[in-house]
Amino acid sequence: MKGRVRHPIITLSTDFGLVDSYVAQMKGAILAACPVATIVDVTHAIARHDAVGGAFAVERALAAFPRGTVHVVVVDPGVGTTRRLLLVKVRGQTVLCPDNGLITWAWRRFPHAAAYELTWRPRNPSATFHGRDILAPVAAAIANGTSTRRFAPRKCDPQLLDLDVAPNDARVGQIVHIDTYGNATTNVPEAALEGVTAVRIGKQRIGLYRTYGDVPLGKALGLIGSSGLLEIAIREGSAADVLRLKVGTPVQLVR
Amino acid sequence: MKGRVRHPIITLSTDFGLVDSYVAQMKGAILAACPVATIVDVTHAIARHDAVGGAFAVERALAAFPRGTVHVVVVDPGVGTTRRLLLVKVRGQTVLCPDNGLITWAWRRFPHAAAYELTWRPRNPSATFHGRDILAPVAAAIANGTSTRRFAPRKCDPQLLDLDVAPNDARVGQIVHIDTYGNATTNVPEAALEGVTAVRIGKQRIGLYRTYGDVPLGKALGLIGSSGLLEIAIREGSAADVLRLKVGTPVQLVR
Amino acid sequence: MKGRVRHPIITLSTDFGLVDSYVAQMKGAILAACPVATIVDVTHAIARHDAVGGAFAVERALAAFPRGTVHVVVVDPGVGTTRRLLLVKVRGQTVLCPDNGLITWAWRRFPHAAAYELTWRPRNPSATFHGRDILAPVAAAIANGTSTRRFAPRKCDPQLLDLDVAPNDARVGQIVHIDTYGNATTNVPEAALEGVTAVRIGKQRIGLYRTYGDVPLGKALGLIGSSGLLEIAIREGSAADVLRLKVGTPVQLVR
Repeated sequence: MKGRVRHPIITLSTDFGLVDSYVAQMKGAILAACPVATIVDVTHAIARHDAVGGAFAVERALAAFPRGTVHVVVVDPGVGTTRRLLLVKVRGQTVLCPDNGLITWAWRRFPHAAAYELTWRPRNPSATFHGRDILAPVAAAIANGTSTRRFAPRKCDPQLLDLDVAPNDARVGQIVHIDTYGNATTNVPEAALEGVTAVRIGKQRIGLYRTYGDVPLGKALGLIGSSGLLEIAIREGSAADVLRLKVGTPVQLVR
Repeated sequence: MKGRVRHPIITLSTDFGLVDSYVAQMKGAILAACPVATIVDVTHAIARHDAVGGAFAVERALAAFPRGTVHVVVVDPGVGTTRRLLLVKVRGQTVLCPDNGLITWAWRRFPHAAAYELTWRPRNPSATFHGRDILAPVAAAIANGTSTRRFAPRKCDPQLLDLDVAPNDARVGQIVHIDTYGNATTNVPEAALEGVTAVRIGKQRIGLYRTYGDVPLGKALGLIGSSGLLEIAIREGSAADVLRLKVGTPVQLVR
Repeated sequence: MKGRVRHPIITLSTDFGLVDSYVAQMKGAILAACPVATIVDVTHAIARHDAVGGAFAVERALAAFPRGTVHVVVVDPGVGTTRRLLLVKVRGQTVLCPDNGLITWAWRRFPHAAAYELTWRPRNPSATFHGRDILAPVAAAIANGTSTRRFAPRKCDPQLLDLDVAPNDARVGQIVHIDTYGNATTNVPEAALEGVTAVRIGKQRIGLYRTYGDVPLGKALGLIGSSGLLEIAIREGSAADVLRLKVGTPVQLVR
């Protein structure tokens, strides 16, 4: 990222919930240093310490926001220990997060990502809230146009979770995310569905359609969801509940 | 709306919840096209597919925001089918929503509303997320000053729910909304309360007062709520729980 | 505060929840009068009518935000009665709230606070929503640079809850807040921990450490939390659940 973005955007994804003021404390730290930032909440309801859920949220945010956006992701059970912090450049955007696998899903889905160790520290950070004391001021500085090199001079290999996009000739994929409605997103991209006529989960055979309205109420279907991945859904129902789907559940691709 | 609003406001009302990143994906699409927009969440906790609840939220938003505001409302079980999308002009503001009754309550309470069929489509919308792929970019374009005619050239009659404001000589109204506190808003405007001395719900007679503090703790009262409508409440208690109120419950007006 | 802050920030802390549109109605009232304001939600999940929880939230917001910020706090069971409204100046920032103890914790922790009775009223405020009808427009006017004297000319003594910071030689403190993770913040500042080797809660002795990672999974610890106060936690567990902590629970300081 060169120079200053005129209307910088900073997004936040955490497992802090919305009951406490932790999210607002991060926003105060950001706005104190970058008053013109537009701050957007991606989610603060990542399950506590759930790096897989956090990895899915940050990938979705990267797909949705324009170049120059800075994404701060805090799911950080290792705060205050020697775990590294990361600065990752991908899609012309920047991600700041602990190095515990949160970057995995973005790393798998987008090309040309580069990770750097975020070594900058303020004088007196708290031992328990690096989101506010380290990541927020770095995000604000980047939004202000400061070179990322100042904060993260060295390239590094990020930690990655055992989670990947299914290859084009895959015979089986898996559920990687379940949303509020009970729709289940898989790791199977549209390209891997060529020649696939249906999917099978356990003993259940599920047909592929274009949208929810293509099947009767209560019927299960597979479709390309808004993430560009195969999604398992039930029209006006919860696929997760009815089909007992979890993150990790295998999905057979019937060719 | 003529010309460009200098600090455009876009509000969002959905049934998406705050766990997933769907709301943020809409914000990313808006900010990519209109970086100066101020985006305000009205609510993302409309009950899934509840058009009545959505209709109440959008009316409240229209009453609260200034001219030029664009309101995006997404409660959309018919996404991807042939259901229409609407662009509605009312109170100098614009509402974008599916044509499934969401505009009803605003249509009943505010004069001079005009509805148009929103026919604009992007090249490759997803089949399941028109809030992000159609409504968000249209909202951003209107916030940028683009004429609404480009997106919605033809007037139309919107679908309306069986829900209306009680007339001035009404003998009975009904509950139209129950809030977090258990306060129940009716469809009875202040004008229809002239000569009314009390209300009756089932066998219970409830007196009318100015504010909660006018009755002892735990006592039921009727009052003009902040929406300008008769509200049934219990001081520091839940009227909905104690009086078993639901959306649709009839309220007798005792003259 | 003299003159106009260029990018004014207004924060909101309420017990309104996020289901209804009440928070958005306040934002509409603010943006109608001050379109350039950046509005930040601190929390809307203060327990209904919980002044202690509200007092903790506003102190955390004051610590996190820059000079010139206006904080609106609405936990207001007495709305519409004769209870006073307050305008408090502290840390170069302004707090607007009902005079029911909400300012207590900020008053105890920060020096040089000054309270004024907020006597300004609009022509036709509702009887039940002074957050929207009085506090929001006053916040917007202050954000626009209007002198606070116009709204609150007279100094006054605010109502304060029975809640204070433990003195430096304290032998016992108490829990003042429990967060989403079950971490319990006490009223014991770092200065009062000199010579303290451990704390005792009931029969349980708990050692003091720097951060969560300094103890094994599931073990209880005391540490200086991100608020600068002694916090009782369990690594990757809930101290509140396991140790049965509540707001008010005494914590012995072992010297």
